[in-house]
Amino acid sequence: MDLNAPRGARDFLPEEAALRESVAGKLKEVFRKYGFVPLETPVMENIDVLSSKFAGGEEILKETYALTDQGGRKLGLRYDLTVPLCRVFAGNVMAKPFKRYQIAPVFRDGPLKKGRYREFVQCDVDTLGVEGMDAEAEILSMVKEAFSSIGLDVKIKVNSRLLLNGLLEEAGVEENKQLGALLSLDKLEKIGAEGVVAEMQRERGLTKKQAEKVMGVFGKADGFPYLEKIGNQNAQEGVKQLKELFALLKAYGVQAELVPNLARGLNYYTGTVFEVYLKKGEISSSLAGGGRYDNLVGQFSGKEKVPAVGISFGLDVIMEALKDQGERKNASSAKVYVFAIGDTKKDCIKIVQELRKAGIQCLLDLADRGVSKNFAFASKQSIPFALIVGEKELKEKKFTLRDMASGKERKLSVEELKKELK
Amino acid sequence: MDLNAPRGARDFLPEEAALRESVAGKLKEVFRKYGFVPLETPVMENIDVLSSKFAGGEEILKETYALTDQGGRKLGLRYDLTVPLCRVFAGNVMAKPFKRYQIAPVFRDGPLKKGRYREFVQCDVDTLGVEGMDAEAEILSMVKEAFSSIGLDVKIKVNSRLLLNGLLEEAGVEENKQLGALLSLDKLEKIGAEGVVAEMQRERGLTKKQAEKVMGVFGKADGFPYLEKIGNQNAQEGVKQLKELFALLKAYGVQAELVPNLARGLNYYTGTVFEVYLKKGEISSSLAGGGRYDNLVGQFSGKEKVPAVGISFGLDVIMEALKDQGERKNASSAKVYVFAIGDTKKDCIKIVQELRKAGIQCLLDLADRGVSKNFAFASKQSIPFALIVGEKELKEKKFTLRDMASGKERKLSVEELKKELK
Repeated sequence: MDLNAPRGARDFLPEEAALRESVAGKLKEVFRKYGFVPLETPVMENIDVLSSKFAGGEEILKETYALTDQGGRKLGLRYDLTVPLCRVFAGNVMAKPFKRYQIAPVFRDGPLKKGRYREFVQCDVDTLGVEGMDAEAEILSMVKEAFSSIGLDVKIKVNSRLLLNGLLEEAGVEENKQLGALLSLDKLEKIGAEGVVAEMQRERGLTKKQAEKVMGVFGKADGFPYLEKIGNQNAQEGVKQLKELFALLKAYGVQAELVPNLARGLNYYTGTVFEVYLKKGEISSSLAGGGRYDNLVGQFSGKEKVPAVGISFGLDVIMEALKDQGERKNASSAKVYVFAIGDTKKDCIKIVQELRKAGIQCLLDLADRGVSKNFAFASKQSIPFALIVGEKELKEKKFTLRDMASGKERKLSVEELKKELK
Repeated sequence: MDLNAPRGARDFLPEEAALRESVAGKLKEVFRKYGFVPLETPVMENIDVLSSKFAGGEEILKETYALTDQGGRKLGLRYDLTVPLCRVFAGNVMAKPFKRYQIAPVFRDGPLKKGRYREFVQCDVDTLGVEGMDAEAEILSMVKEAFSSIGLDVKIKVNSRLLLNGLLEEAGVEENKQLGALLSLDKLEKIGAEGVVAEMQRERGLTKKQAEKVMGVFGKADGFPYLEKIGNQNAQEGVKQLKELFALLKAYGVQAELVPNLARGLNYYTGTVFEVYLKKGEISSSLAGGGRYDNLVGQFSGKEKVPAVGISFGLDVIMEALKDQGERKNASSAKVYVFAIGDTKKDCIKIVQELRKAGIQCLLDLADRGVSKNFAFASKQSIPFALIVGEKELKEKKFTLRDMASGKERKLSVEELKKELK
């Protein structure tokens, strides 16, 4: 029997699971600090919901795991957390703004490559019901603090789909070629200006003249002074929103960089888009990304328009970044490993319970092992201290605490142990 | 389009999701205090694993959601967290004892009834690799503390399959009828002695004489003095283990009740079994249950025998119990709702960020609403305080803090606000 997780899915052994749990916990703490609330939706969704024309679209539907229950109902495993959010928001009466987070696994039966899995955890934070840039500014401030809370130093790149479209119009790209041009432009930092010009001709159907004109416009588009002069209406609206956003970000004390070619793929974004990158290090992919999608939620309910802004954290790439920084966590967060010598097990238990009552995480020998085996176990589990409860110790009411790193031993009373191990 | 979750699956809106998250968080804290470590396994498992003859068995396999990936691999959604634990333990080199917890959704395509769902969260804690009662005692102490940490007062019922089998042998029930008799006995508290005697004849093939003899034995089996006199070897071994367990529980300061007819269904248990019930209240089903299963893990790997003890918390029934007690949680844990009056938005943001930096959870008006709408929103979200940042307040550097319950208002500086809202 194959004892591995299915292809594209993974087991996280305790050391990694502990780090993941700690990261998720810290992120949630920041989400809550900013007033976001949790929402829990099932792994299984009705296939009608997943395949609704307002949902994830053709491409993602091809990668959707389908199943049928015994009542003949057609179900699927969710491929994201946005569609369930739209469904729940459309199906319930919710006060606006509705600010929710959800950290949960999603499923995509697509091709595997480095960093790409078939079952992976998404971590989404969205604000529904806010038209102004206040939602974006708050989310970006939250993002900055969230990454800082897990020890990652990031930079935020911002753009607006309106500005991007306006610039493409300005460069004279026909409407039916704009989407293709945009996909090439998104790669500017990866393949350079020449690469973009080449790809636009080769894959996107632009003439050489057009492609060069696009790069001419985007080459100059490195700040508001130039952008503000563009007469195009979309571009003007985009610039207006971005200026408002940057002014709010200043109040939040958050820095961001305007990147006029940032597009975020073919997604459903209607306004601002943003991506988060590491300031230093080897990882070039984004650690989080999102934007404004004002049409999706409303379409889903078929009722009113619901403005929305969201961001998705990539837990896997975040874990990779933390490991690159040398971050690791003991599987066990136990502060002390405790064992009895001789017929002292019950007294040993009582001491352990006193320490636990004081909030100290203890690991107790459950197998009546000998001294050297116990020390070896504590050392292998990287537990900082070992505590020995023997008959002599019990008489003296002082117990031997060994610092596992230095090997130094001290005799301490239970009260002293509490203080020492707190 | 149907906007509900699929049949048997559920959405948890923020208020309930917040309470669930809080309960899970408190449980995990206690698990860690006792030295248990997290393990994360995927929702999808290879069907070979789920249907292995050492796994959940025929009945549960009928309720397993099956799916096929695009590579033609046969997969299923996990129906419990024990099989994945066995798979991971068998497939990796793990130090023993291996003490892990996992809180995650499982899936069973079975009949629905009150309190029974097709997608539900299990919360499992297991100790692998410990032969003695030390594992049971530690788990039961952890269980007691876990329930106490979420505010539920519980009693623990304990039994041993060895004792149970011994008592059935003692009552002269043939081996092929013991399993049936055991299922009837398990209902003693629900249907009474007469009910058990009737069911044993009607459904389990026992003669009237046999059934009455069983009840005679179990009727007297209300404590160690009687049980110790039974000559049957299984019963003797069971009594020995239980006495050892009760002695250890005494050292832990944990009370438990010996219930000789407790069986826990047809499960794979080989020794001790235990169930946790509310001391008071309407809920008669168990809140947690488990026991020793010494054969399962080893069989899975086909290698050595691996002793194991585990318990599973029923998160749904726990939530029901908490709600019965009137427990509820605000969706938002925000301490204060902050809004600007006039042209003070940016200063308002700065103050909010200062409060957040001090660890205070703040909800900020993102929609530039008027005063009365803002108060109404804060009140509806049950946020205890509202903070008003107006131009007059900015000049005075004192801001109006309104106690939403009493309506009382005070003027406080940012430093005073930090202290007040901490």
